[in-house]
Amino acid sequence: MAQKPSIPKGTRDFSPIEVAKRQYIMSVIKKHFERSGFQPIETPSFENSETLMGKYGEEGDRLIFKILNSGDFLAKTNEEFLQTKNSLKITSQISEKALRYDLTVPFARFVVQHQNELEFPFKRYQIQPVWRADRPQKGRFREFYQCDADVVGSTSLWQEIELVQLYDAVFSDLKIEGVTIKINNRKILSGIAEVIGASDKLIDFTVALDKLDKIGEDGVKTEMVAKGISEEALVKIQPLFNFNGSLTEKLNQLRELLASSVEGTKGVDELTFICETVEELGLKSATLNLDVTLARGLNYYTGAIFEVTAPETVKLGSIGGGGRYDDLTGIFGLKNMSGVGISFGLDRIYLVIEELNVFPETVSNVTDVLFLNFGDNEAKYCLKVIRDLREAGVNAELYPDKAKMAKQFQFAEKKGIKYAVIVGETEMQQNIFGLKNLNSGEQQNVTLQELQQILMK
Amino acid sequence: MAQKPSIPKGTRDFSPIEVAKRQYIMSVIKKHFERSGFQPIETPSFENSETLMGKYGEEGDRLIFKILNSGDFLAKTNEEFLQTKNSLKITSQISEKALRYDLTVPFARFVVQHQNELEFPFKRYQIQPVWRADRPQKGRFREFYQCDADVVGSTSLWQEIELVQLYDAVFSDLKIEGVTIKINNRKILSGIAEVIGASDKLIDFTVALDKLDKIGEDGVKTEMVAKGISEEALVKIQPLFNFNGSLTEKLNQLRELLASSVEGTKGVDELTFICETVEELGLKSATLNLDVTLARGLNYYTGAIFEVTAPETVKLGSIGGGGRYDDLTGIFGLKNMSGVGISFGLDRIYLVIEELNVFPETVSNVTDVLFLNFGDNEAKYCLKVIRDLREAGVNAELYPDKAKMAKQFQFAEKKGIKYAVIVGETEMQQNIFGLKNLNSGEQQNVTLQELQQILMK
Repeated sequence: MAQKPSIPKGTRDFSPIEVAKRQYIMSVIKKHFERSGFQPIETPSFENSETLMGKYGEEGDRLIFKILNSGDFLAKTNEEFLQTKNSLKITSQISEKALRYDLTVPFARFVVQHQNELEFPFKRYQIQPVWRADRPQKGRFREFYQCDADVVGSTSLWQEIELVQLYDAVFSDLKIEGVTIKINNRKILSGIAEVIGASDKLIDFTVALDKLDKIGEDGVKTEMVAKGISEEALVKIQPLFNFNGSLTEKLNQLRELLASSVEGTKGVDELTFICETVEELGLKSATLNLDVTLARGLNYYTGAIFEVTAPETVKLGSIGGGGRYDDLTGIFGLKNMSGVGISFGLDRIYLVIEELNVFPETVSNVTDVLFLNFGDNEAKYCLKVIRDLREAGVNAELYPDKAKMAKQFQFAEKKGIKYAVIVGETEMQQNIFGLKNLNSGEQQNVTLQELQQILMK
Repeated sequence: MAQKPSIPKGTRDFSPIEVAKRQYIMSVIKKHFERSGFQPIETPSFENSETLMGKYGEEGDRLIFKILNSGDFLAKTNEEFLQTKNSLKITSQISEKALRYDLTVPFARFVVQHQNELEFPFKRYQIQPVWRADRPQKGRFREFYQCDADVVGSTSLWQEIELVQLYDAVFSDLKIEGVTIKINNRKILSGIAEVIGASDKLIDFTVALDKLDKIGEDGVKTEMVAKGISEEALVKIQPLFNFNGSLTEKLNQLRELLASSVEGTKGVDELTFICETVEELGLKSATLNLDVTLARGLNYYTGAIFEVTAPETVKLGSIGGGGRYDDLTGIFGLKNMSGVGISFGLDRIYLVIEELNVFPETVSNVTDVLFLNFGDNEAKYCLKVIRDLREAGVNAELYPDKAKMAKQFQFAEKKGIKYAVIVGETEMQQNIFGLKNLNSGEQQNVTLQELQQILMK
């Protein structure tokens, strides 16, 4: 019955070194989340289906992994749906739970459910896996971690400022220098659509504008015209296609363009406050840049929109994003709860750090020292020393079997263990330890005290 | 469309303090795993169904959460099964994936799949959630974490010894003193069944013996007789019912009882080696005890069997268990891979620590200091100080809105924040900070340097 083992497509096994590297990234993110006053929560991996369904659009619903009810799940199903093999209608009859699709909707559910236990504004972070039945491809998985920090319960723009600082702190600490934090504001996009008389075409307009990088000015204009945006309107927004200069210059251009729109002007005011304050406070290694083409999840965000792109030398695109949403918890019946949050893309960040080769050398979970095994007496002798070393913080192990010395050395080398300790009868009698540095090949006899000193470094 | 939000039964939301406490326990376990040379791996939350099904018995199969196939999952189902509503047969036609039920089977799958990349003996640990469609009850959840350490690829008994030490190190570090590590050996149970001529009734015999605590000697004997074990046999095993004395005395009694059984004697030899060595090396706070009634998952284990029970003052029973299984990977086609491992029961351990009240006071993720917000100028001023404090390792936050002072203080108090900093116009002019200790109520004016010194403590 030997079956060739495999894992579902889009999922991954992580080896020890991969786990170490992922934990390193998460620990840095977590550290800065806590420094900024965010507190961790965790929610269940699966939610009741009605909590998730209908929150991510039709496409999202399709991509949610549903869990089959236990027991005789067909018993109460509709005969007709079964006979006509109506998968869509049967789904809700045989599945009541679904795997988390993101961390935002479960967070909204959490806030509403626990509203009486929480102090608002509530700053929470959450680092947990999510699942999507997406077509797997390079860099896109069916199980992946999200690392989110959100504040709910205040409309203060100081939070946007702090989130920009948080991005800067995390990426600087991870030695990913030169990221660009792109910022935009939903109100500006609405304002532009308004001043060109295309408020009813806001989505078409932003979808087209979003493609500027890919299809260029002419392409965008052609698409806009095809969607019914007038040539006159295109003339008005010409400044957006030559949108250059410093942050202040860009903001001034926008202010002029949007002078007739109340909402647009409010967007410019918000962005101006955020950008000027961030500039005055200063960033360590990131650059804040206004990008009017930035729209990510437009239907969702109501104020600031963020996206972080990796340094230009690594062509990896977005490594984080977020924004403000004025009605996070309304779907669960709690109105007027404005939220703003950012997310870190763990898998992309991992690739960026690999590419930049900036994982710290200390990121490893390899044992520091292997004690070779020359028999039961020697092993017992060693285990006493090992116990003390472990208490002193050294990761130490005993080779479990009395194998040939060459085999034991090979084991240590292949695992990347730095030191091997040799204790045979002679060493026991003389109260010494043979210590071999497997990197340099150097071997010396040391006392117990010397051994401890060297290994505790 | 406001729905009252809830989560599926048997699952839990974790609040910030609960997350902090759970992370504390996991970090202690993880630390000692790594000290002992175990390396972390992670496997996907769901596996192909054929990887899991049939590995946990019929009851286990029933308790595995199955994931519904995406898309038009009914399209290729068997008409007859649908019409007769045969849930059992339909399951495999509409579900190809299932949520992890434990960490052992995925580990076996991992070892076989990656055998050419691993060095054996391979010491891995894994701390991940598992899911079971069990009936939820007090202390039993449908989603819970397992914390496992296993070594695969060596039959050396030094590993059993090290695992006993590992249990002792973890529980001592967690300040759970006085746990009992019960040990038994499958070969001893087989040996007893053999010497009383009941080898064919090994399961019945051990199931009955396992109840000694609950139903007493007479109850056990009655059950054994009912299962066809002879009165003669019961006389032979009488020593098991008066099984007292030191470890050595117990082992001697067993050696005598099992003298005629080769397997039983081997079991006694193994246990003697483990127990004597552990005794000689010494344990910090745990007690190792031989318990011949211990059988946990008998069909699975082939050598040592472990179970850890909480200190007697807390009536919480088993907080860990494990043992040796000689054919872990055989189910996936890799023969002759002996494994031995132990598991820590996170939820139970959490309850024990709560009951003993030994969570360290430092386990918390509450912000150290809240800067009150008196307006944009003051906020900007504060944010510069906050940035420096964060870099120095202080968890600091700014109240995002210019709210009434009483409200801001109340917020800090309810969240359990220790310090509040007050910076109004006067303080800005005088270059001082109002620092209020919210525990003592004491307030003082301090310089920037003093502020940093106090908060960095």
